[in-house]
Amino acid sequence: MAALGENAPGLGIGMVGYAFMGRAHSHAWRSVGPFFDPPLRPEMTALAGRNAAKVQGAARELGWASTETDWKALLRRDDIGLIDICTPGDGHAEIAIAALDAGKHVLCEKPLANSVAEAEAMVAAADRARERGVRSMVAFNYRRVPAIALARRLVAEGRLGTIRHVRAQYLQDWLADPGAPWTWRMDKERAGSGALGDIAAHIIDTTQFVTGQQITDVSALLRTFVHERPHDGGTRPVTVDDAALFIGRTSGGATASFEATRFATGRKNSLRIELNGSQGSLAFDLESLNELWFHDAAEDSLTGGFRRILVTEAEHPYMAAWWPPGHIIGYEHTFTHEIADLLTAIAGGTDPSPSFADGLQVQRVLAAVAESAETGTWRTT
Amino acid sequence: MAALGENAPGLGIGMVGYAFMGRAHSHAWRSVGPFFDPPLRPEMTALAGRNAAKVQGAARELGWASTETDWKALLRRDDIGLIDICTPGDGHAEIAIAALDAGKHVLCEKPLANSVAEAEAMVAAADRARERGVRSMVAFNYRRVPAIALARRLVAEGRLGTIRHVRAQYLQDWLADPGAPWTWRMDKERAGSGALGDIAAHIIDTTQFVTGQQITDVSALLRTFVHERPHDGGTRPVTVDDAALFIGRTSGGATASFEATRFATGRKNSLRIELNGSQGSLAFDLESLNELWFHDAAEDSLTGGFRRILVTEAEHPYMAAWWPPGHIIGYEHTFTHEIADLLTAIAGGTDPSPSFADGLQVQRVLAAVAESAETGTWRTT
Amino acid sequence: MAALGENAPGLGIGMVGYAFMGRAHSHAWRSVGPFFDPPLRPEMTALAGRNAAKVQGAARELGWASTETDWKALLRRDDIGLIDICTPGDGHAEIAIAALDAGKHVLCEKPLANSVAEAEAMVAAADRARERGVRSMVAFNYRRVPAIALARRLVAEGRLGTIRHVRAQYLQDWLADPGAPWTWRMDKERAGSGALGDIAAHIIDTTQFVTGQQITDVSALLRTFVHERPHDGGTRPVTVDDAALFIGRTSGGATASFEATRFATGRKNSLRIELNGSQGSLAFDLESLNELWFHDAAEDSLTGGFRRILVTEAEHPYMAAWWPPGHIIGYEHTFTHEIADLLTAIAGGTDPSPSFADGLQVQRVLAAVAESAETGTWRTT
Amino acid sequence: MAALGENAPGLGIGMVGYAFMGRAHSHAWRSVGPFFDPPLRPEMTALAGRNAAKVQGAARELGWASTETDWKALLRRDDIGLIDICTPGDGHAEIAIAALDAGKHVLCEKPLANSVAEAEAMVAAADRARERGVRSMVAFNYRRVPAIALARRLVAEGRLGTIRHVRAQYLQDWLADPGAPWTWRMDKERAGSGALGDIAAHIIDTTQFVTGQQITDVSALLRTFVHERPHDGGTRPVTVDDAALFIGRTSGGATASFEATRFATGRKNSLRIELNGSQGSLAFDLESLNELWFHDAAEDSLTGGFRRILVTEAEHPYMAAWWPPGHIIGYEHTFTHEIADLLTAIAGGTDPSPSFADGLQVQRVLAAVAESAETGTWRTT
Repeated sequence: MAALGENAPGLGIGMVGYAFMGRAHSHAWRSVGPFFDPPLRPEMTALAGRNAAKVQGAARELGWASTETDWKALLRRDDIGLIDICTPGDGHAEIAIAALDAGKHVLCEKPLANSVAEAEAMVAAADRARERGVRSMVAFNYRRVPAIALARRLVAEGRLGTIRHVRAQYLQDWLADPGAPWTWRMDKERAGSGALGDIAAHIIDTTQFVTGQQITDVSALLRTFVHERPHDGGTRPVTVDDAALFIGRTSGGATASFEATRFATGRKNSLRIELNGSQGSLAFDLESLNELWFHDAAEDSLTGGFRRILVTEAEHPYMAAWWPPGHIIGYEHTFTHEIADLLTAIAGGTDPSPSFADGLQVQRVLAAVAESAETGTWRTT
Repeated sequence: MAALGENAPGLGIGMVGYAFMGRAHSHAWRSVGPFFDPPLRPEMTALAGRNAAKVQGAARELGWASTETDWKALLRRDDIGLIDICTPGDGHAEIAIAALDAGKHVLCEKPLANSVAEAEAMVAAADRARERGVRSMVAFNYRRVPAIALARRLVAEGRLGTIRHVRAQYLQDWLADPGAPWTWRMDKERAGSGALGDIAAHIIDTTQFVTGQQITDVSALLRTFVHERPHDGGTRPVTVDDAALFIGRTSGGATASFEATRFATGRKNSLRIELNGSQGSLAFDLESLNELWFHDAAEDSLTGGFRRILVTEAEHPYMAAWWPPGHIIGYEHTFTHEIADLLTAIAGGTDPSPSFADGLQVQRVLAAVAESAETGTWRTT
Repeated sequence: MAALGENAPGLGIGMVGYAFMGRAHSHAWRSVGPFFDPPLRPEMTALAGRNAAKVQGAARELGWASTETDWKALLRRDDIGLIDICTPGDGHAEIAIAALDAGKHVLCEKPLANSVAEAEAMVAAADRARERGVRSMVAFNYRRVPAIALARRLVAEGRLGTIRHVRAQYLQDWLADPGAPWTWRMDKERAGSGALGDIAAHIIDTTQFVTGQQITDVSALLRTFVHERPHDGGTRPVTVDDAALFIGRTSGGATASFEATRFATGRKNSLRIELNGSQGSLAFDLESLNELWFHDAAEDSLTGGFRRILVTEAEHPYMAAWWPPGHIIGYEHTFTHEIADLLTAIAGGTDPSPSFADGLQVQRVLAAVAESAETGTWRTT
Repeated sequence: MAALGENAPGLGIGMVGYAFMGRAHSHAWRSVGPFFDPPLRPEMTALAGRNAAKVQGAARELGWASTETDWKALLRRDDIGLIDICTPGDGHAEIAIAALDAGKHVLCEKPLANSVAEAEAMVAAADRARERGVRSMVAFNYRRVPAIALARRLVAEGRLGTIRHVRAQYLQDWLADPGAPWTWRMDKERAGSGALGDIAAHIIDTTQFVTGQQITDVSALLRTFVHERPHDGGTRPVTVDDAALFIGRTSGGATASFEATRFATGRKNSLRIELNGSQGSLAFDLESLNELWFHDAAEDSLTGGFRRILVTEAEHPYMAAWWPPGHIIGYEHTFTHEIADLLTAIAGGTDPSPSFADGLQVQRVLAAVAESAETGTWRTT
């Protein structure tokens, strides 16, 4: 019988929040070691939440070694080097700025903030922190879908030529039923916006990442179909959008057509992207996240067509760490990839990506969309 | 050996134009009898075109019994009861109005005209003619795709509930190559507009037909990517749009998101429609025109999902006339269906659909889109 | 007004039978001229059927100029040069042999005959006729699906390398309901066999055509699930197979796995073929007959994948005659292609393909399958 | 700061082997707690492997607390209650029997053994152990794909009626290249067989599980395409099959058509199953493991069709433990599900499933297939 040690230096993690995102991040912190052998060994040191009993139960379930009922306590602990923020958007700015200023690296869930002003303050904090070697990252996890990372690589290599059209939809249906209960995600104060910040933010970031371009101006439409929802025996007003649509232009001269909704009956988590370029096209749907469809205009017309690339080969981004070809991965793997890249950047003394500045830029697009919808005019971002 | 007669009364057809649309219509005039046994027996009496040699060759190839080099000659012939207009859009108004005023029924290709004013004059002529029992129809053939007709029926029966989202794209790629030659379709004078009138018109009419709603206001973007194209050894300017995008609202309170382009590399004829309603959703792609995807929200969550309806059953619209289940039909069948319905309406003394008024309404949407794109403001239709 | 002539010499057609196949052939005879401009101009001269009233009605509907109540009368008519046999299989041999011996070209529906002996006699007649310039063809129409013709071309060009696996299914469901009525297709005397001769024959011929190989030995299983079916107020015994399965070997060293059934609930006309070769693979499904899926092993592993080739380009077999790219065709077009090739072969004095000898070889595979199933042993073909 | 305990009693795990399967099992042992909160808390106590340095490295990477270089040492340790066997098939019988006789629960990878005789001895050991409350399970993990578990439920509820056809393929291509190197999986001594035991075993077990029926007799074909493969600078003979095909009958009267191959170029991990029953059909492909296609014959013919069920709802088997609807899972989750069920069964004092007896039955089918292929005759299982 032989006991074991580990070689990589440790990094204590303190996580704030333990709902949907907290569960996903916990799994990633747990899994990154065995699959990616990162240069820093994450230690699941502490979980913070207001309710002592609940946070202890969550920590036990999710594998955190200790708990705090005040997130500020995490910043004072020497055994914690990174704060992972998994709270609703209205808490991001305060926690992230305090953590960075306390010298803790920060991983912050998306959208970066609930307003451009908050996001700007966060970028300033990140800039200050960077000078001291303290790193920050906003968790747009879909950049780490292997098919999306491959799409980025193909675009960057020029396989699509000049991009003419960017087309993206994020379709869900969990609010299509007017009887679906009110949650904080329907409250403008907590969530900032509805489908816009929650899911349109994903397609904005993901398409900007893949194309390497920014959305520069937009004409938008926001809709709320159901204005009150059941809550605590009564109802409570819905103060956010149920659906967000816009058309626009990108910095590289492409058209943009975007739609995000929680009312697309039968579509559960259909984040679809299609890019058409002068030399080729790409299509993707998150419900089939292991597949990327690619059309190469250089193919002869006899055998040309969209190829279903099953993105499970060892050559594909992140996939060498997982299973043999054809063995698919799931949603939560994107967080493991994200954290592997984050740990590698911290250990290497480089800035992880997407940065808070990237998060701010998305925030500006969200703001332009909201203003365009409100005013009925085109807005630049 | 027994010789044969036919019972149904005959109707002489005079067709103007014999390019792509003329070939498709000719096949339909030829096929409608054997498959639909219509109450009027169409006779392919005369084909009109300016070039005597060419029109005679075309008539021989396509099965027309005689030719004229002036379409006005068709209006003077007693053996012709219906004029089928297959010319570019700039000729529609003059021919249609003259034919209707001459007492000939008219089938006119889409878009109805190149301007709202022309279309209004055509509707006035159609109204005058109707009083004398003379009928008119605009050839939005995709209404007669069986899957689209089925979609209309499902919506009309309330299977989708309240429609929340209308999403439509018409993606082609035949102009993605900057070296593709100039044709009349790139000339604003002849064609009226580019992708807008040619293919956006189809998705506008088809979605309005299926939903039973009209697009009421729009914010649009038109783009021309390639401004000169090869012609006659030199180049010639492209004066129409290569792509047209808009968002909007419908009369029933749904959002609308539309895009039409000839630059979607790898997409050959992908007219896609998706409708999301409170009780269900529908999806369609013309490249798989025998399929309709339907999600019924009433299904239990254990087995619910989008169904691929193979629209080839005898119960499906138009399909009893064709082959056993599972034997698919193609693009040109839509014209045969259209003509079968037209002949039935004429024989029955009723107005065929879509009417010139329907064509005018589409024209108004096209005009609103063009104006919105030009001015950067929202426009009502 | 100008009257028209035609240049190509005419060929009078006499067709026997006017059910499903007769309707499909009639449409093809009508359509081949306008779309393919064949070197012989077919004239729809006479239709033969036993019931005078019915055959006259059919001729009127389908466009035949005259009728006969005895097919032998067709052979005596000078205005008829080709006999098109669309009867059940038990009539093929007698009619085809008589027609060929009478100097008429013959197009015969598949399967060629109900027994190997009949098929051998038909081949002998075809051999005799060929010496006099009289041509014969068996109507395995799926060879003329453009995607199948393209598949043949890719295999012949070596794009698949050595073929390792041939996998084919023909799945229908029209007999899954035990209450579906008895027809002649369930009678061994008339039909020869059930799913075996009706639909397995198609996948046998099609895969042999595409691979250029023959099935050399088989181990088979035939099943009849429903032994009596409603007929004329009572029931009548089903004396043929409902499903036919076999494994086997091909002349080129591939394995073969075949299944044909009319009990595949929900599958309407799903003829599926997949070939796996050392250099690539192909997949096809008749329910999506305009698509061919192709995997080229030479693609780099980063972007390799099965391509959906939309077989609607002018470069694709037969497609230049039809519509612009992306405009799909349907089931009946295969017959038009078949007849275009037949007319070209007759005019050119060459043998059309598939020949009666090809039909006989398929018959031998069918016989081997039936014997293997009966004896529970492997059989060579 | 609060420290945490756990309530469920612990169960020490000793795992033998740490290659592909060992990595997958380790991840499952690590993940089962947070997601399924099982009644026994697994402790990753010890990993056994012959090479001390390698096993220590693996243990460190995969999260095992200690190592042994002799698996027998695991049986002597009091802190280990369950042996997880992840070795090649030739080691299964000895380890499993010794472990069960030593009073350790056993989870054994599939196929259960390399021969029927070994499997019989293992079942005898499992029977002896059961009397002492010691449990055993064979790791056919695909039973725990949620879509497969849902398929089982639909069949058990009678949604398919009488099953007529079972059709299954397991297509991979990692040996299609003759230059792919020799491994122990090509050695009959180590692996027992090739595609047959490795992947055909999966489709045999999975279809038998879903249908609740057994394969009763078979006619089979085994093929080896490449007889020598590169190894250690030279070559080494391949003594197993590259592909296995068979047709057969099931205990419930259905036909069976099976094919497993490692030569299906372009197919990476395509385990496909289709069942056709009198009342409905199901189709599945492991490359899209979150989807089940279901056709219900009770649907009206107007809207009937195969539904794509995205098996990600909380109501679906195992899915309540994971993410919101539409967020897909991957291959390795099947092992977590398997272990969750195993721990529940052990804690509840019931027999987990599939049992060693189930594994023996699959072994008998594999033996019948091998004998049928060798003798060219039908064999019963």
